[in-house]
Amino acid sequence: MTALETGAGERVERWLEEGRRWSDAELGKAAEAFEGPGSDLADAMRHALLGGGKRLRPSLVKLFCEAAGGDSQAACAPAVAIEMIHTYSLVHDDLPCMDDDDMRRGLPTIHRKWDEATAVLAGDALLTEAFGVLSGCSQADVLCSILAQAAGLAGMVGGQALDLQVELDSLPEEKRLEAVELVHATKTAAMFSAACELGWVAGGGLGEGREASRAYGFELGMLFQATDDMIDVTGTADGLGKTPGKDAELSRPTLVAALGLEGARERAGERASAAREAADAVGLAEGHPANDLVGLLLARTH
Amino acid sequence: MTALETGAGERVERWLEEGRRWSDAELGKAAEAFEGPGSDLADAMRHALLGGGKRLRPSLVKLFCEAAGGDSQAACAPAVAIEMIHTYSLVHDDLPCMDDDDMRRGLPTIHRKWDEATAVLAGDALLTEAFGVLSGCSQADVLCSILAQAAGLAGMVGGQALDLQVELDSLPEEKRLEAVELVHATKTAAMFSAACELGWVAGGGLGEGREASRAYGFELGMLFQATDDMIDVTGTADGLGKTPGKDAELSRPTLVAALGLEGARERAGERASAAREAADAVGLAEGHPANDLVGLLLARTH
Repeated sequence: MTALETGAGERVERWLEEGRRWSDAELGKAAEAFEGPGSDLADAMRHALLGGGKRLRPSLVKLFCEAAGGDSQAACAPAVAIEMIHTYSLVHDDLPCMDDDDMRRGLPTIHRKWDEATAVLAGDALLTEAFGVLSGCSQADVLCSILAQAAGLAGMVGGQALDLQVELDSLPEEKRLEAVELVHATKTAAMFSAACELGWVAGGGLGEGREASRAYGFELGMLFQATDDMIDVTGTADGLGKTPGKDAELSRPTLVAALGLEGARERAGERASAAREAADAVGLAEGHPANDLVGLLLARTH
Repeated sequence: MTALETGAGERVERWLEEGRRWSDAELGKAAEAFEGPGSDLADAMRHALLGGGKRLRPSLVKLFCEAAGGDSQAACAPAVAIEMIHTYSLVHDDLPCMDDDDMRRGLPTIHRKWDEATAVLAGDALLTEAFGVLSGCSQADVLCSILAQAAGLAGMVGGQALDLQVELDSLPEEKRLEAVELVHATKTAAMFSAACELGWVAGGGLGEGREASRAYGFELGMLFQATDDMIDVTGTADGLGKTPGKDAELSRPTLVAALGLEGARERAGERASAAREAADAVGLAEGHPANDLVGLLLARTH
């Protein structure tokens, strides 16, 4: 069962596949340039960066770069940078002192394949090199500022910390949704938001479109995280490429924990509507991948 | 006993004290702006960033900014950024999976005062915010590029990984010095080098002075690391603000392990001479803090 009509479903799958290929190629080029004084660290970085994944964030960078009228070439560096940041966050998130995951994207995590120190340092290096990559762009100052804000204390890292800190059970029921959505906004949506904004700016886009691009990315990120929480309950290890059921096991603040599965599904629907409105404000018509993607993410709740 | 004549000793101590105060004030202002969705992470970042330290790297940024003819105001952001990077590296280096240190700068390390996850994330946030701070500078692209190169895979992080990887005992004796100095060059000297170069560029300096500033920072960093290795053998917990003797205990690749204490001392002397030559090439006369500092670092071997 899917919330997408068949044409849209095929279209967005094709778009995703193209985006994944483009992203993989760009990431591969970037990873070739990894050169350090030892060999293990660069290998571990490549293992994490080139180990597959949906490549949603870099694909969004490209999509909004082109929506702003830019060439896909202008999207390469910010796309690589944002996927490096996303990848480092997974590497650190998988550490024994955090989620303690053995598998990621169907492969052993770095701390399982190498060791914890290598995982910490490979994450640090990917994070650092992301800004190195961005520093070569025109408007590097604006792009670095967007990425640092989204990835830093007020964004992704702050959200990761909050995620570990929030004890949903100790909050009154009416406060739980707010607490969960603050985690989602900072941990996940900030980076989706940045992906779209980076693309828009790198593509030469100006004015209101920039804010609307941010808004689209934000709502899409909230939708993505909502369905991610649902899939952790309903999914399988094969489909996820990681161990399912960890969230509940670790009493994590998820939308399902706050609202139940049905409530989470409704909330996801609201986010989908908001994302579609934002896409409209950017000037992206029905049938544009940005709209199809909303349907696809919503459909994965079923 | 000191290698410095009395006037130079007092002069450089005064310069260090001024640099430390200036750095602490700038870092304090930056830390006030730390605001995340939770409270622990920002607190942990402040604990690490404002917990004291010699502030050598930010003081070097200021020194070379002024040497290039710039105002100290232009040095603020790169000085804060480089100390944030240095601080994050200490936080991660102290983790149980790396050096497993309980104390740093006379205070409990983050993973002891909070927990390991907070230490990983506080480090990640400091690293990210460093580039956020730099992104607001004029010539942000150049500055971000310098910092990312020095801090990343080919620099500090690569050096940290190599440091953990190198087994000096398994190398033939004639290869040991080279192996140790590759660790020192990447792990430590790259960041000293970047400090001087960032200052020079932020101060509006051009041309040959930039390369000479880099070279000075590099040699000073090699000297600093050489004496650091020696002090780990000869120092006390009170003087160090951390547990001494860890290097030997963990069979770390140190200059002392490669050359013995006397050999390390000689090597430090050679680095001091090279640093003085580079200072001369920048146009910094005898009596300038850059020269006094060389004497001071050399003196701390005794």
